[in-house]
Amino acid sequence: MKLLDRIATIEPLRDEAMAAARERLDALTKPPGSLGALERLAERIAGITGEMPPKLGGKAVVVMAADHGVCEEGVSAFPSAVTAQMVHNFLNGGAAVNVFARHAGAEVVCVDMGVASNIDRPGLTVKKPACGTANMTRGPAMTPEQAEAAVLAGIELVGELAARGVGLIGVGEMGIGNTTAAAALTSALLGVPPDVSVGRGTGVDDAGLARKRDAVRRALAANGLSPAGLPADAGAAAALDALAKVGGFEIAGMAGVCLGGALYRLPVVVDGFISTAAALAAARMSPLAASFLIASHRSEEPGHSVVLDALGLEPMLELDMRLGEGTGAALCLRIVEAGVDILGSMATFASAGVSTKLAAEASEAEAGAGA
Amino acid sequence: MKLLDRIATIEPLRDEAMAAARERLDALTKPPGSLGALERLAERIAGITGEMPPKLGGKAVVVMAADHGVCEEGVSAFPSAVTAQMVHNFLNGGAAVNVFARHAGAEVVCVDMGVASNIDRPGLTVKKPACGTANMTRGPAMTPEQAEAAVLAGIELVGELAARGVGLIGVGEMGIGNTTAAAALTSALLGVPPDVSVGRGTGVDDAGLARKRDAVRRALAANGLSPAGLPADAGAAAALDALAKVGGFEIAGMAGVCLGGALYRLPVVVDGFISTAAALAAARMSPLAASFLIASHRSEEPGHSVVLDALGLEPMLELDMRLGEGTGAALCLRIVEAGVDILGSMATFASAGVSTKLAAEASEAEAGAGA
Repeated sequence: MKLLDRIATIEPLRDEAMAAARERLDALTKPPGSLGALERLAERIAGITGEMPPKLGGKAVVVMAADHGVCEEGVSAFPSAVTAQMVHNFLNGGAAVNVFARHAGAEVVCVDMGVASNIDRPGLTVKKPACGTANMTRGPAMTPEQAEAAVLAGIELVGELAARGVGLIGVGEMGIGNTTAAAALTSALLGVPPDVSVGRGTGVDDAGLARKRDAVRRALAANGLSPAGLPADAGAAAALDALAKVGGFEIAGMAGVCLGGALYRLPVVVDGFISTAAALAAARMSPLAASFLIASHRSEEPGHSVVLDALGLEPMLELDMRLGEGTGAALCLRIVEAGVDILGSMATFASAGVSTKLAAEASEAEAGAGA
Repeated sequence: MKLLDRIATIEPLRDEAMAAARERLDALTKPPGSLGALERLAERIAGITGEMPPKLGGKAVVVMAADHGVCEEGVSAFPSAVTAQMVHNFLNGGAAVNVFARHAGAEVVCVDMGVASNIDRPGLTVKKPACGTANMTRGPAMTPEQAEAAVLAGIELVGELAARGVGLIGVGEMGIGNTTAAAALTSALLGVPPDVSVGRGTGVDDAGLARKRDAVRRALAANGLSPAGLPADAGAAAALDALAKVGGFEIAGMAGVCLGGALYRLPVVVDGFISTAAALAAARMSPLAASFLIASHRSEEPGHSVVLDALGLEPMLELDMRLGEGTGAALCLRIVEAGVDILGSMATFASAGVSTKLAAEASEAEAGAGA
């Protein structure tokens, strides 16, 4: 299988660049460790790019859109038509992610991964294996071939972006019904019950929430997926199988973007619950991929924290957002850049002539010896 | 007293602009409330500026530096000389706050509020009432006149920045020994014991931590400040008195910046423990001032969360930073701008032709009526 061959070539973080970054961080004009998570991030990004200091280059927010057959089950507060309407909004620059990406100095790359209707507009990247998934409560959402094609499309997109100088990618989505798919995927991979993985998404009422939970239960059963979840070491083929059965085209595409980050050695900032569920699928296909991922914010959607914990990722922002689109990822891009830039742009104690703690103690010891 | 007369003129948030912002937020192409804290922030900033949409203008990170007499008590891991050395580092552009401010598109305004030595360099704003505070364990850190002058200097600085187009200010500090002063101020205002308000600052060991706690206890006693704290409604003069006795020149200056934000009607983003303790002093001088403040991050310093809670502020970033300088505030400036810009730049459901939940329900109801 082409996909499994590709992801088998992913290599780990580069130890040498990380050691050089660690050494540099401890020489900079600040108390050791005082930049907290940003120091750990800077070190990790040195390991991702293999450069010291790392150069990130251009920024992009990838917004993958697709429709979901499970919407037939009444799982969303909005009609499916909104997916395509929002694609037009992204292309017109009017959505929240467009505003945030402008402030981040990032381009928005809008990708039709499987919108129900065909949209013919300049600026839209089309990589759809089909017009929407099948209803996962009655069988697999995607065929194995469709799922593989969607993941490969995500990898391919990262290759295209990297080739034109993008070195930092945020990834998000739009797809009416996709919190239901993400919840089903979370339950399928982690074995958490739908009561934990399913939230209100765009804002369903109590009856809608009950329908979503029921749809997830039926989807797992219809596809023969164990409520106990998939063992973490079940392997790439098993993770891809779960993704095909209860995922979505944009979710598979985002899993591909995460794997693409690891293959093209650039950091990928994941957004909210749905993109993080996609990241989890990527990490289950290649455990090495998780170390190329950055968590942006902690969403209000309850499944998000579960998936972040499973990936071992700590988000940077706490804004109780739940919009998706890549909005949280876009807000983090400048912070990631600033964090990395301490390695290249800050003065050291030596270069700035600032006394270090040790130097001070040494001079006190000298003074003591002389007294 | 000139200061008390000035702060008595602070006016509350503008209801009309806030109502217009709220209405706009609910019309934008996103589920209602889905941008969480950013929606509440955008609404509040409309109330601060009185404009809809608000225009923020230029950005500045104010870094106030001063020395502390309490350093004689062995409360810091670094020698006092580092304060002046770091001022040179700020002016040379080599500190972490310089790196982060560049990414934020903000200027760094470095202010000598009371460094022990006199620094003669272009680009340094000098507003010092004196060269360092007195040792607060033996009496007041500042005279009442010095404290008032320092607060007024902070207000004046905001006026100068506003006059040249700055509309968003981050505020931070540098001052060896100033976590001890901030802890004493926190205990004096809130009545929390030094075991809660005192942390390791730049990184003191266990013996240093014990010395800091002891110094705070002795400072409160020497200055006749009650361990029970100051009632929240004790008034501006009482808060200024506590600030004079156990604060610092940069802390008083930052309290002035916070009050200046309220007087010149622009949002002020506070940084870590020390600037937030200054913000608390400002809010105790004028309760209206708190609504002009934005919390950036939650510091590792234990007293920070106590002060944030007292101010009713929720920080945006969780990065376990503890550097100060305004680094956390600088990282938030773009997020604040992006959050405000949703009011001016996002499409509405109507303008983008996106179906709303209600429209969908209405059309389903029509379809039902026709069937």
